[in-house]
Amino acid sequence: MPLKDLINQKKNWRSVYRWGDTEKPIDTTIEKHIAHFRHLLGIEKNEALLPLNANAYQDVKLAKRSRLTRLSLKEIIRIVGSENVDIDDFSRVKHSFGKYYGDIVRLRMGNVQAPPDAVVYPRTEQEIEKIVKYCHAKKIAIVPWGGGTSVTRALEATKGGIALNMARNFHDVLSLNTQDSTVTVEAGILGPDLEKYLNEKGYTCGHFPQSFEFASVGGWIAARGAGQASTGYGRIEDIVVGFTVVTPAGKIVCGNYPAASVGPDIRHFILGSEGTLGVITRVTLRIRKFNAANTVMQSFMFKSFEGAVEAMRTMMQSEIYPPHFFRISDPEETDGALGMKGKDKGITGWVLDLLGFKKNSRSLMYAIFEGDRAQAKLGAKTLKKLAKKYGGMSLGTYATRKWLEQRYSSAYMRDPMMDSGIRIDTLETSVHYSRLIELWKAVREYIKADGQTLCLTHISHTYETGANLYFIFVSPMLEKDELNRFEKFHKGIIDTFLSHGGTLSHHHGVGRLGAHALSKQHSPTALAAWLAVKKSLDPKNIMNPGALIF
Amino acid sequence: MPLKDLINQKKNWRSVYRWGDTEKPIDTTIEKHIAHFRHLLGIEKNEALLPLNANAYQDVKLAKRSRLTRLSLKEIIRIVGSENVDIDDFSRVKHSFGKYYGDIVRLRMGNVQAPPDAVVYPRTEQEIEKIVKYCHAKKIAIVPWGGGTSVTRALEATKGGIALNMARNFHDVLSLNTQDSTVTVEAGILGPDLEKYLNEKGYTCGHFPQSFEFASVGGWIAARGAGQASTGYGRIEDIVVGFTVVTPAGKIVCGNYPAASVGPDIRHFILGSEGTLGVITRVTLRIRKFNAANTVMQSFMFKSFEGAVEAMRTMMQSEIYPPHFFRISDPEETDGALGMKGKDKGITGWVLDLLGFKKNSRSLMYAIFEGDRAQAKLGAKTLKKLAKKYGGMSLGTYATRKWLEQRYSSAYMRDPMMDSGIRIDTLETSVHYSRLIELWKAVREYIKADGQTLCLTHISHTYETGANLYFIFVSPMLEKDELNRFEKFHKGIIDTFLSHGGTLSHHHGVGRLGAHALSKQHSPTALAAWLAVKKSLDPKNIMNPGALIF
Repeated sequence: MPLKDLINQKKNWRSVYRWGDTEKPIDTTIEKHIAHFRHLLGIEKNEALLPLNANAYQDVKLAKRSRLTRLSLKEIIRIVGSENVDIDDFSRVKHSFGKYYGDIVRLRMGNVQAPPDAVVYPRTEQEIEKIVKYCHAKKIAIVPWGGGTSVTRALEATKGGIALNMARNFHDVLSLNTQDSTVTVEAGILGPDLEKYLNEKGYTCGHFPQSFEFASVGGWIAARGAGQASTGYGRIEDIVVGFTVVTPAGKIVCGNYPAASVGPDIRHFILGSEGTLGVITRVTLRIRKFNAANTVMQSFMFKSFEGAVEAMRTMMQSEIYPPHFFRISDPEETDGALGMKGKDKGITGWVLDLLGFKKNSRSLMYAIFEGDRAQAKLGAKTLKKLAKKYGGMSLGTYATRKWLEQRYSSAYMRDPMMDSGIRIDTLETSVHYSRLIELWKAVREYIKADGQTLCLTHISHTYETGANLYFIFVSPMLEKDELNRFEKFHKGIIDTFLSHGGTLSHHHGVGRLGAHALSKQHSPTALAAWLAVKKSLDPKNIMNPGALIF
Repeated sequence: MPLKDLINQKKNWRSVYRWGDTEKPIDTTIEKHIAHFRHLLGIEKNEALLPLNANAYQDVKLAKRSRLTRLSLKEIIRIVGSENVDIDDFSRVKHSFGKYYGDIVRLRMGNVQAPPDAVVYPRTEQEIEKIVKYCHAKKIAIVPWGGGTSVTRALEATKGGIALNMARNFHDVLSLNTQDSTVTVEAGILGPDLEKYLNEKGYTCGHFPQSFEFASVGGWIAARGAGQASTGYGRIEDIVVGFTVVTPAGKIVCGNYPAASVGPDIRHFILGSEGTLGVITRVTLRIRKFNAANTVMQSFMFKSFEGAVEAMRTMMQSEIYPPHFFRISDPEETDGALGMKGKDKGITGWVLDLLGFKKNSRSLMYAIFEGDRAQAKLGAKTLKKLAKKYGGMSLGTYATRKWLEQRYSSAYMRDPMMDSGIRIDTLETSVHYSRLIELWKAVREYIKADGQTLCLTHISHTYETGANLYFIFVSPMLEKDELNRFEKFHKGIIDTFLSHGGTLSHHHGVGRLGAHALSKQHSPTALAAWLAVKKSLDPKNIMNPGALIF
């Protein structure tokens, strides 16, 4: 079954909030991971939390009926065909949430506060234009919906209206231009379909967010995302060449040149707009040649996180083409990874300790070079030298290969972990090198102060001037008031980012979850200019109302 | 004398329009170049054009007196001090124009239509804020003025008001952060001062526009420029990390992170805004280590422009770090360069012809690799192989060294060429590879149709998906109506860019000269959003009124 069809497959609650294919049994390695987390947290199955699962396999039922008038429904059906409009409870619930931890908690409680009134699956750009025009005239809200993988509450139908599902019918590759190294696609195409098409021609898009399997190209742009290989291939704003966006005020075709000085860059008004300004339709992306045989993998163990970061920084500032994937696990994540593989108690942990790579301080670095063979070799040779300089020990390719194998899998863990009473969520930021360690320590301190919480951190996106920090926090779910207390905790992490030189987000975006902090991230005058763009493109605020500052 | 003082040095007309230091005699190589152009165009000294020089060494006098009220002048003097306000005719004329060919024609005719009422030289960001606030309250226009090197009529005081000269007093390096690889400066600093500071510490900014000697960092951002080494170091939007901009609606501090997903990127509202939204004050730029000993230079002769472009494209798409400087001269420019060195008639031209590198078809490629030594070597080795594959013959380093020596000098030629009755101007665009040759041919055809015109073209900025095309057109000045007929011709070139897949501009910007074509470059809905930003940041249209769409 094509991935894009999965999202409408099963009609029970669990298929709404679970990641991926609900038919598949839980992977045994995931079960092992969960057992390990239970062991680390020292918790047993918590019966008190079982009510959160009460709804799990029931049919989906919504209290609120669709408020779309018969006339509006008729008009929308006229545009896209009756087979491309859903108003049943399952489809509406499915399009009420993304994949944020709080979303799953709410869904498990059967608490759906903001479902869309209908789900619409357009087939063409013309249909999208007609829908936006009609909804603008009738003041019906639209939430553009790609793969539904938002972790920032970007996808709620705060004012009802329609969820515009781009993935089901609007996912063709329109053209490939090998002379320009570009591909043009419909925005609803999901990562694997695009990548499969390109790989068959010897190319790659190079954009691999963790949500890759279920995220759409339009979503990549709307969320201003970055993939796991962004160090080599660039973030989506580096990869995108041009696109069309249909706004209530009209259609914008932008970019589609190698570079230019033609005033403000209008693409950057839309990048990161998260559906609040319009619907992204056609997209042209830069592609690169890909030959798996050229790939060079490395991994290194460092005595400290600080040492690993210095090696990474030096590599990024070396003026040598950097690794495409470039990561560091902090000590807690490193020990966690060793622990999960049963190696901290075994001979590996013992040997590492003996060599001075001590538990609670050692840090694992992963690097993968792609592209040209000679270039990849030069990069790997340079990194090896730099790693050595900063006390790193080469571990060969094993750790990196293992990471690569399971790089999309951790999202599958949340649902079964919650079944075991374990809360797991993530937040990420970016920061210049000069404040990276300070920020890392401050956030860890904040998270640890919450009590019984694991905090696994990595750097996964690196730049010449700084890097991101990605925090995974794991703790027992609370029996009382889990959601409110979690959200308060969550806000505190973002505040800690901002007060230590970090950004509100590095690649997840803002949605509704980070909106409270936008005024700390941006100057008020800048926010006013942004709001002016909103009013110009969407004067009636029908596009994803309630997200970002709108 | 520091470069930044040169711009206020001499009080006659010639010192307004001539490039650089008016004290210096004309370089003898420039005289040779001019003689060569005269020969190619078959023209003698044209006495009829002499009236254009009548004013050259007279004192500058303006018909219009400053319209600033005594009260306003007093208030501005209170803010910056009387020594930092000029209302004399010379200073006002000096700040009435940039360096576009039409500017020089007008200046030579003593035709100054839009002088500012005063020139103000702020010393601090606080002073700039006070001036903007005061001018906003009193509706006095402000044209931010860096080095005055605009070639797009971006610097006219269409509505009078003040020219805000940033270069004289606002040019300090504020901090260097070698850990983050960044430098923070006041926006009025000129290229050479910044580069000298960085070079002494072992770094480079990597931004070398042809106007480098006289252009300011604030101007680089305002014009969204690209330097001659942009292929390796990136365009200014790749180099800039963050900046402060003082707008009539308030101050915006933006960027200052390695990367982020925090909504639309507000830096891209200001990049390319050409002074129409606010005054850029503090700027943080990414820097790179620089060691001249690592530099590798190459040059290659190709049998055709098409072959050279294919080699360049393949290099840019090879996933090997590209040359920092990467250029191709088209056949007419190649023959011109050989001719100016007296080589087309000598043994070099003969040998080239014999080897199949025929006149009117051969194309010269220049490449300079900087940064890391091993990386530079890998790049050079790759390019050599690719050049050979596409029929290129290595010419060693001679041509590239020669180009490097005179890379800022052609701007000095215009004034003496005009003394000889020769018109010279340039326009540039960018285009994807798949339409590059088509565009090049179409523009050449258009330019040649104008009659007795030389058209020397090069590619100087290259990307994975395409490149720029930079056209230099040289012809005898007309005895009648030179300006109007030139401007009509000029508009036609831009229209030809746009109708063959090119952009309005690649790195010169828009100013007032390209404003008529903005509606062909951008969708109307995008222009409306841009206008909304303008209204939000500068509701009374005091910032550089008349430039771009405002």
